Amino acid sequence: MNWLDEINWDANGLVPVIAQEFNTGKVLMFAWMNREALQLTNDSKQAVYWSRSRNKLWRKGEESGHIQKVHEIRLDCDEDVILINVEQVGGIACHTGRHNCFFKKLDNNQWLTDQAVIKHPDEIYEEKSKHE
Amino acid sequence: MNWLDEINWDANGLVPVIAQEFNTGKVLMFAWMNREALQLTNDSKQAVYWSRSRNKLWRKGEESGHIQKVHEIRLDCDEDVILINVEQVGGIACHTGRHNCFFKKLDNNQWLTDQAVIKHPDEIYEEKSKHE
Repeated sequence: MNWLDEINWDANGLVPVIAQEFNTGKVLMFAWMNREALQLTNDSKQAVYWSRSRNKLWRKGEESGHIQKVHEIRLDCDEDVILINVEQVGGIACHTGRHNCFFKKLDNNQWLTDQAVIKHPDEIYEEKSKHE
Repeated sequence: MNWLDEINWDANGLVPVIAQEFNTGKVLMFAWMNREALQLTNDSKQAVYWSRSRNKLWRKGEESGHIQKVHEIRLDCDEDVILINVEQVGGIACHTGRHNCFFKKLDNNQWLTDQAVIKHPDEIYEEKSKHE
């Protein structure tokens, strides 16, 4: 049996994916993959997601350069959630220029941002453009 | 503005939730919450999810005793994913009796289980019944 067939894809053919940083254990981001994205992720050992907003494959880092090198791929008990352990190139996983996407902490019934922007998004995407 | 109103609930009124163990950094499980579940989680500081299969609130540990004490609640950049940091009572988060749900590792195109069962599910649920 093909390992991809063992996954319980949802009605849209997607599976939720949690990306965790292998050396810090920090949860970096949450996204989705379809079958092709997961196959490509395993083949290339670089995270490829499915963008639900753009409705196409999203090679993480294709614009920002902040690719994720995949060390490990895990599946949960119900075979419907993927956990990947990754090395975050550039140390920035979030499109806001922060280390990870979970920078809002609930504090006294308010969401407080407790992570600094490492690099301004304009700078991230400008720099990349210069290389192209 | 109420902190619950800042969350981008999906079409079903749910938000995906990642539960991470606060002292080990391990990702324990993935589940969903609706507004009531998240409110209850924050009020009680114990994880309450929404069971999509049973279509009702799921007070984690209500049958197994393996409750999750919530240390921190975080929200992501797009305000549509929650990350909670929890203390896993009993050291077992998964209904299979394992520490966490991500015990299948992709190895040479096969899913290999690399986590032992700490307590057999029959035993977990029997014990609980005895207390009731």
